[in-house]
Amino acid sequence: MAPGTADPTDGIDTPAVLVDMAVVQRNIDRFQSLADRIGMKVRPHIKTHKLAEVTRMQLSAGAIGITCQKVSEAEAMLDACPEIRDLLITYNILGDEKLDHLRKLARRVRLTVVADNATVVDGLSRAFAAEAEPLRVLVECNTGADRCGVATPDEACALGLHIAAAAGLRFQGLMTYPPVGGAASVQSFMTRAIALLADHGIAVETVSSGGTPSMAQAGEAPVATEYRPGTYAYNDRSLVARGVCDWEDCALTVLATVVSTPDPHRAIIDAGSKALTSDLLGLSGYGHVLGRPDITIDQLSEEHGRLVSALPIGLVVGQRIRIVPNHACVVTNLFDSVIAIDGPAAPRTLRVAARGKVV
Amino acid sequence: MAPGTADPTDGIDTPAVLVDMAVVQRNIDRFQSLADRIGMKVRPHIKTHKLAEVTRMQLSAGAIGITCQKVSEAEAMLDACPEIRDLLITYNILGDEKLDHLRKLARRVRLTVVADNATVVDGLSRAFAAEAEPLRVLVECNTGADRCGVATPDEACALGLHIAAAAGLRFQGLMTYPPVGGAASVQSFMTRAIALLADHGIAVETVSSGGTPSMAQAGEAPVATEYRPGTYAYNDRSLVARGVCDWEDCALTVLATVVSTPDPHRAIIDAGSKALTSDLLGLSGYGHVLGRPDITIDQLSEEHGRLVSALPIGLVVGQRIRIVPNHACVVTNLFDSVIAIDGPAAPRTLRVAARGKVV
Repeated sequence: MAPGTADPTDGIDTPAVLVDMAVVQRNIDRFQSLADRIGMKVRPHIKTHKLAEVTRMQLSAGAIGITCQKVSEAEAMLDACPEIRDLLITYNILGDEKLDHLRKLARRVRLTVVADNATVVDGLSRAFAAEAEPLRVLVECNTGADRCGVATPDEACALGLHIAAAAGLRFQGLMTYPPVGGAASVQSFMTRAIALLADHGIAVETVSSGGTPSMAQAGEAPVATEYRPGTYAYNDRSLVARGVCDWEDCALTVLATVVSTPDPHRAIIDAGSKALTSDLLGLSGYGHVLGRPDITIDQLSEEHGRLVSALPIGLVVGQRIRIVPNHACVVTNLFDSVIAIDGPAAPRTLRVAARGKVV
Repeated sequence: MAPGTADPTDGIDTPAVLVDMAVVQRNIDRFQSLADRIGMKVRPHIKTHKLAEVTRMQLSAGAIGITCQKVSEAEAMLDACPEIRDLLITYNILGDEKLDHLRKLARRVRLTVVADNATVVDGLSRAFAAEAEPLRVLVECNTGADRCGVATPDEACALGLHIAAAAGLRFQGLMTYPPVGGAASVQSFMTRAIALLADHGIAVETVSSGGTPSMAQAGEAPVATEYRPGTYAYNDRSLVARGVCDWEDCALTVLATVVSTPDPHRAIIDAGSKALTSDLLGLSGYGHVLGRPDITIDQLSEEHGRLVSALPIGLVVGQRIRIVPNHACVVTNLFDSVIAIDGPAAPRTLRVAARGKVV
């Protein structure tokens, strides 16, 4: 804060999630510019913010649509932000209840889903066989992250043919969530799968890749037609640790109050795992206290965070601190609302429209 | 399930939190019996379940009241369960907004809070100085967990005298959240603090201890007048690992569906960190798949859980499994509702009244 300026966070009860909207805008614009330069479309994953307002900022900047991870998440986002026209759900969708919701969703928006196995494809086909419009389906491919995805380009081709032949479905292309630094793997897997499908006369319209950690290298897999960054809108401590961004690029912080200083080297804050989550993402400690690189948040219980330092901790009870969490997306999911900070303007409360949507 | 019996979980969309109410009842009764035998009062911490229905079961079994961790949590529980008469908030409460809520809460229920420093005591005193009834305050003591709490019996005595002299407050006694196996430490700390306060003519009416991991040893610190178990109502994988209970005592499970089997030794389920949380509590892996001790849940992203086994994984897409999470309390906080299972009766949806209450 500049001297003499009122701190807009003064009246906010803690713990609270603050989102600096100027930083969000800069983060969105930065990747959109890169994508425009390399000729790749942007389809942000809204799991990071789950907010209508940030979705609108992403669409205004040039995003072609959004990505969601679950049917319920997609419904909540579309309800909150009806101007969404194009929506991808990057998940194997199974079960009558979810398929029923999916069918209704497909009548509201240009919808695409993914599948990595025939059981899922057959379920989608049964659900959409009687619909007027076919459902677009991408084959999810494992390019090294070893989560979901068919293991080889041959399997991708076989499943693509299965989709192309299935009633109610339209084979749209390929999708992957690559490992960090996996651009070369994406390029070779997808190029081979496209060639195999071409041998069968099947065109691949969309190749969707993603991941904020590797987004600066998006151009190294030019086979991709679109990119799905998520965390880039907020950034977090894990991305600073990877060298992807700096602290001033972290739009989401947790505002916390010191509630106890029981030892010269220890302080307790009112943000625990219910505010910061236990996600470590390979890091040591549960977040970065802005301005205090000497402090480690070494232990969380649900409502307490423990701060330790080899230096005198130098905090007093009642003092407020801001923390960059290890992983922004999981923090978003814990709060019914976040506080938008716009410079010196009065903070605004934003409802986290798609919080807690797991099914 | 007995052969030929319909599975009451069949129609439940996943991921979902199941709570076996018969197991909850048995867990509650078991500790209440122990407490009755050793002459200790039970004041369950509701953070584990955050449900009106389980609170009522605990009160019916003989609990004298409940424990909450935050003011907003206490308000939500009292709204959902107005028959609560006695409520302890085991947290340093700071700030005008929280103190305003606390004052209103104190007019609705017999309310006690804790403090471990003079700043908190002075804030409470200012907030309650003009109230008709004084607020009860316990001194929080550090008996080895190294979170909050005054460090020595002398400091406990000094803060107790400060409370006793403060307008609007009534010194009620002492409180600790002990480390696992810390009964001897509780006994010696509290006995000494009581003696020091007695030298000043100050009586200690309440000594509150807690913690499910050590609850079987509650009788080893007879200085305590009441005990605050939380997780005991549900139990979880961390407590099985500590030898406190067995799998059949775990009332809370996460029902998940296999969505992908991309490798003979790997399967992916639709429960990730948004369902199971990343809490490890010193364990390896993110939960126990019932009936499959060979499986490790070795990786979670928000909506995917990765299961690996040295044996053939032997799961098929669409199959449903039940998982005992590492830590039940943090799972509860992620779900707007849970599904109560009562034997073969139709499952009931219970609203998690105090979910997401962090302030």
